[in-house]
Amino acid sequence: MRRGDTWFFEREPRILSYASCVGVKEGEGPLSKGFDVVGEDNRFGEKTWEKSESRMVELACGKAVFKSGLSREDVGCLIGGDLLNQCISTSYAARALGFRTVGIYGACSTMAESLAIGAALFEGGLEKHPLCSASSHFCSAERQYRYPLGYGGQRAQTSQWTATACGAVIMGDGGKAKIKAATVGRVYDPGVRDAGNMGAAMAQAAYETVSAFFRDSGLSPADVDLIATGDLSAVGSEIFSELFAADGTDVSSVYGDCGLMLYDREKQDVHSGGSGCGCSAAVLCAKILPELESGALKRVLFCGTGALLSPVSVSQGESIPGICHLIFLEGSL
Amino acid sequence: MRRGDTWFFEREPRILSYASCVGVKEGEGPLSKGFDVVGEDNRFGEKTWEKSESRMVELACGKAVFKSGLSREDVGCLIGGDLLNQCISTSYAARALGFRTVGIYGACSTMAESLAIGAALFEGGLEKHPLCSASSHFCSAERQYRYPLGYGGQRAQTSQWTATACGAVIMGDGGKAKIKAATVGRVYDPGVRDAGNMGAAMAQAAYETVSAFFRDSGLSPADVDLIATGDLSAVGSEIFSELFAADGTDVSSVYGDCGLMLYDREKQDVHSGGSGCGCSAAVLCAKILPELESGALKRVLFCGTGALLSPVSVSQGESIPGICHLIFLEGSL
Repeated sequence: MRRGDTWFFEREPRILSYASCVGVKEGEGPLSKGFDVVGEDNRFGEKTWEKSESRMVELACGKAVFKSGLSREDVGCLIGGDLLNQCISTSYAARALGFRTVGIYGACSTMAESLAIGAALFEGGLEKHPLCSASSHFCSAERQYRYPLGYGGQRAQTSQWTATACGAVIMGDGGKAKIKAATVGRVYDPGVRDAGNMGAAMAQAAYETVSAFFRDSGLSPADVDLIATGDLSAVGSEIFSELFAADGTDVSSVYGDCGLMLYDREKQDVHSGGSGCGCSAAVLCAKILPELESGALKRVLFCGTGALLSPVSVSQGESIPGICHLIFLEGSL
Repeated sequence: MRRGDTWFFEREPRILSYASCVGVKEGEGPLSKGFDVVGEDNRFGEKTWEKSESRMVELACGKAVFKSGLSREDVGCLIGGDLLNQCISTSYAARALGFRTVGIYGACSTMAESLAIGAALFEGGLEKHPLCSASSHFCSAERQYRYPLGYGGQRAQTSQWTATACGAVIMGDGGKAKIKAATVGRVYDPGVRDAGNMGAAMAQAAYETVSAFFRDSGLSPADVDLIATGDLSAVGSEIFSELFAADGTDVSSVYGDCGLMLYDREKQDVHSGGSGCGCSAAVLCAKILPELESGALKRVLFCGTGALLSPVSVSQGESIPGICHLIFLEGSL
């Protein structure tokens, strides 16, 4: 059933298995022990960055399938996306994987969007084991959105580091963490025109979606252990907290951002923090889900945040709209 | 419930309203009387082709909402996509429209994918009135996928004409046409490397998905009035028919392609026929749904076909995989 902007799942799909695949820099970060596959380099045996990213999708999905114990025939449809033009890393991985495929585009909110659709298909009795994925790769994203790597362009301090990462999740009846609800977001545009400051562009969307969830569910920040935005990073996180503070709501004790969890900003040169579809996807699979299973976390709002820009829209003078989709996860209490 | 690759909808979502918005050339074609909005030029009051396409999405969705009689608050989430990098025409339209938004990418199969997700959300009791859309614009697509228009590049006879078109559909309990089932496709790659021959790249995917539907449903071509592929056009349609003929199945009496319905190839210079997300979306809204409502058609397989290429994947020597999603529509019998 739906209340307001939020889908509440009566069948409560559970997280059967999950896996992540990341690059070198991510493997050197604070979550290093949580990843399933860490590349020796960022190429994963391929000759182009786009193919490397596609290979990461195959590896993460393949690992999630292996960990689920399901036969290939029992795996449901793949719901996945990425940041590349025409979502080629997901499409070519889907060719190799062979599953029925629902391609999605939600910029960096993709992992949450994928989980929302997967849970909805489970709720409707249409898929028992949807496979949800999202990926990004620093090298393919940089040259597509900004500059070729060899150009060595200088980055503003507000800019973020696109994660070389992929996360994949399979749902089912079994598993310790369950999906209780999902809030599908609207597009909000605070007027930011700087593609090097995407946290600021996405913060309002995150605030609006999380607020809608609290309104629809009757819950408050005190009822959850963690509100994890996807990739607002340092700049956007501060705006997010300020927007809630202006409402008289203090989220500070439960708020964190995946872009700030993936890297150690003191030791790793990522400027404002991590970003990309793979950022929140990998943090979900390497930290949030394991902690929900262990009992360290009990109730989590996983909030994928996406900046809906393209290099063309920016060059045409458009501002950068943001979107945020929220997944309400609960561990075995 | 699901059988094989096909979702069968027990709640049978109906088509409450629909609308289309097209460009000049489409408005001069054989379906001219069926469109809701025909542009005076292809700009729709905007200064760039990308913004023109976005405006078409707003116009088609706005018209569908108006025709539905629903209040803005009662319209469900928008499920939409397009061909542009990062799906900007849909995202910017979603900013203007203000609905909750699920962004999808299925290349030219987008309209069928959107309807499949919309029907699934209806089936799960999550959305009463999902709004499904898909768009494309000749001018934004040509310069992104191939050459800038001013370059005047010569086109091969196998090439297709990207439709300047958008279709939008709103579901509900009321309406004469209903969605009985949807088959979500897999990615198939027959090895075509010519971005000027996409019909050939997609034909196998269409054959596989339609075959899966017949297997899952127990129906045969004799049980339907129309199998409408999205944009195989002249070359791909012939391959599609030949693949079925090799199985001993004659589809010729019920088979048609939206890319061949949208234009008059004798009088309009479109080479192999129409293509683009908007092609099948506009033919659905200008011809198929009206004929299902009038009783001229009773059972239709609407089969969106997508070529999952990008200019980058082609330049890296990749072949072009195809995908096809099928929607089984039934009129009021």
